[in-house]
Amino acid sequence: MSRVVTLTTDFGEGSCYVAAMKGVILATAPDATLHDLSHRIPPQNLRYAAVFLRGALPFFPPGTIHVVVVDPGVGTKRDILCVEWREQILLVPDNGCWTSLEAIAPVERAFRLSRPELWREQVSHTFHGRDVFAPVAGHLAKGMAPHAVGEPTSEWIRLDLPQAEKSESGIRGEVIFVDDFGNLISNIPGDWIRESASGIAEVAVESRPVGPLVATYGEAEPGRPVALISSFDTLEVAVNHGSAAAALDAKVGTPVTVALSK
Amino acid sequence: MSRVVTLTTDFGEGSCYVAAMKGVILATAPDATLHDLSHRIPPQNLRYAAVFLRGALPFFPPGTIHVVVVDPGVGTKRDILCVEWREQILLVPDNGCWTSLEAIAPVERAFRLSRPELWREQVSHTFHGRDVFAPVAGHLAKGMAPHAVGEPTSEWIRLDLPQAEKSESGIRGEVIFVDDFGNLISNIPGDWIRESASGIAEVAVESRPVGPLVATYGEAEPGRPVALISSFDTLEVAVNHGSAAAALDAKVGTPVTVALSK
Amino acid sequence: MSRVVTLTTDFGEGSCYVAAMKGVILATAPDATLHDLSHRIPPQNLRYAAVFLRGALPFFPPGTIHVVVVDPGVGTKRDILCVEWREQILLVPDNGCWTSLEAIAPVERAFRLSRPELWREQVSHTFHGRDVFAPVAGHLAKGMAPHAVGEPTSEWIRLDLPQAEKSESGIRGEVIFVDDFGNLISNIPGDWIRESASGIAEVAVESRPVGPLVATYGEAEPGRPVALISSFDTLEVAVNHGSAAAALDAKVGTPVTVALSK
Repeated sequence: MSRVVTLTTDFGEGSCYVAAMKGVILATAPDATLHDLSHRIPPQNLRYAAVFLRGALPFFPPGTIHVVVVDPGVGTKRDILCVEWREQILLVPDNGCWTSLEAIAPVERAFRLSRPELWREQVSHTFHGRDVFAPVAGHLAKGMAPHAVGEPTSEWIRLDLPQAEKSESGIRGEVIFVDDFGNLISNIPGDWIRESASGIAEVAVESRPVGPLVATYGEAEPGRPVALISSFDTLEVAVNHGSAAAALDAKVGTPVTVALSK
Repeated sequence: MSRVVTLTTDFGEGSCYVAAMKGVILATAPDATLHDLSHRIPPQNLRYAAVFLRGALPFFPPGTIHVVVVDPGVGTKRDILCVEWREQILLVPDNGCWTSLEAIAPVERAFRLSRPELWREQVSHTFHGRDVFAPVAGHLAKGMAPHAVGEPTSEWIRLDLPQAEKSESGIRGEVIFVDDFGNLISNIPGDWIRESASGIAEVAVESRPVGPLVATYGEAEPGRPVALISSFDTLEVAVNHGSAAAALDAKVGTPVTVALSK
Repeated sequence: MSRVVTLTTDFGEGSCYVAAMKGVILATAPDATLHDLSHRIPPQNLRYAAVFLRGALPFFPPGTIHVVVVDPGVGTKRDILCVEWREQILLVPDNGCWTSLEAIAPVERAFRLSRPELWREQVSHTFHGRDVFAPVAGHLAKGMAPHAVGEPTSEWIRLDLPQAEKSESGIRGEVIFVDDFGNLISNIPGDWIRESASGIAEVAVESRPVGPLVATYGEAEPGRPVALISSFDTLEVAVNHGSAAAALDAKVGTPVTVALSK
């Protein structure tokens, strides 16, 4: 069975940079199976990458190799990490874009890439995706072990993602992701909502109140914003047959609050 | 040989929802070969999906598994169907988005998904693509038969697509698809045009006349709209080296008429 | 091992035309491994395709089959070529969109498609991608030799790409590609810059001077345009954490000049 290698970048859909990476991986590991996850991470947006990876990677099977190139520090001294996590392998820049995954399961082992003989002969200063990530991914896909591509490490840069807060009077969080339907995914844990469900007085996006907590989109009147539990298992605000982002003029970072009755 | 599974959704290119579905399919069927068909079906647009599927699926070989998640009713009581069609397998919501295919060949057998033990343990109310479609697609890819995933059914929701009409004085249809070049694909059958070719007095988009019927784009003067037979085998209006949609201010639903001389 | 077939078109991301091509290839060669390179070549833009292919194809291994459908002449008498290049196989329209690759390595052999019995039974006038390119790609993926799909040829249409010029006082080139970050890739060879590095007085985009020559994005002050060597090994103008295209109001064709001190 060929190894699965996924690609996540901020290069843009249909970029020749992605195509070049695919060529290099296949030149090293002709049997690798490549899957595009996304090339539409907004340029150099580490937070978006963090939310994306947390929404996607937990579902992949052991043995999958994930290559993530959202790398504003390319060409500088930032390291590249090879991380073992849930029996999957991540190849990521050491800039924190992947550390959202640590909330789901701890890192098993991690290594800093240190063997230039595995890289392309000429390493450009602007495109480590092609010249370092891709050939190392190829070697991993051919079965090389993570410990063979670098030196063990136990420290790395972590990204601080905004956390929701809870008090007696309510919960305060924010929008962390807006999907293509315009649904607003917040960072308020589903558990907090389930625990408080009977006591929820109002959900609001910024100061705009949204309708009741429902189980599913279909329960809402078309056009009316409602709150529900997202597929990320967090509080979501959605408009049935419409865009909550447009209706509520909200985007990543917009506050989401839940008022609790006593 | 690994089974081919195609994915068609309205989640948007590079969506983490698509990535999660790929993870679940591969976790169930590590050997499955996944192909993205489109994730740019306009949100919840069943008619667009119907035209897309009719333009794409007839060309796939027997044994292909097609997963289609254009599903405004997610979380409600709408069923999910597993359909055998031309020795291919479709996994589709029961909302009619796929029934355009019945005009090409009849359904062989159909089943309503009914075995939650094949689904993900926790089924969210908002994302059956990941929690129901993907694991069932994985089981099908591993060789499970369609009759093993649900109960037989012979009725389903059908989508009424606009049909062209023909009289002695002419043909009346409409634009059903605008491609990325701006070509206008109508629902007027190619056969009607071929039968009437010598008697065509004028083709018009809304009330704007377009040039003559030509065999190929290259026969048109650059910039001038012409009529021809589309690759869907219907009447198409195109502008050589330009966009007919822009030139004629047309979109899906715009009337297309053919005046016939006596 | 299954053969790798890549797809590059101007059909648009998620187009049903691309989906139909995939179906036809898989119907002919069920074991083929398909990879999307790009479907976002701007419509009928041969020069963009030329730059794209030069940035992507050199990295693929021998045996790869590349299908390129950027084909404004579809349906006219333009031929389709099957080209052997660096032990890879290209299936391309004879319109020059691929001849940028000849600057990297000479063509080994080339053939004009001439065996309609390998094509789809009905060949439309508007979609040779589905009706000619895809089935021939399928036959090649199953192992048919290039010489078996057409007649040998040694002449083809070549695309004139703008070349940079060098004089004693300076170098004059232009922007040939703008990537999704807004980086401006010029046609000025990296070698010319390395040879002249100590004597560079000023790099300018149109008449707007840009900052110094740096080794990597990270060396630039955020927001300030700088010059560096691109991953294409040509002169690039970039803005660290920003878009040079926006900052300098530049696009493909905008002049890039390097003034040399004596």
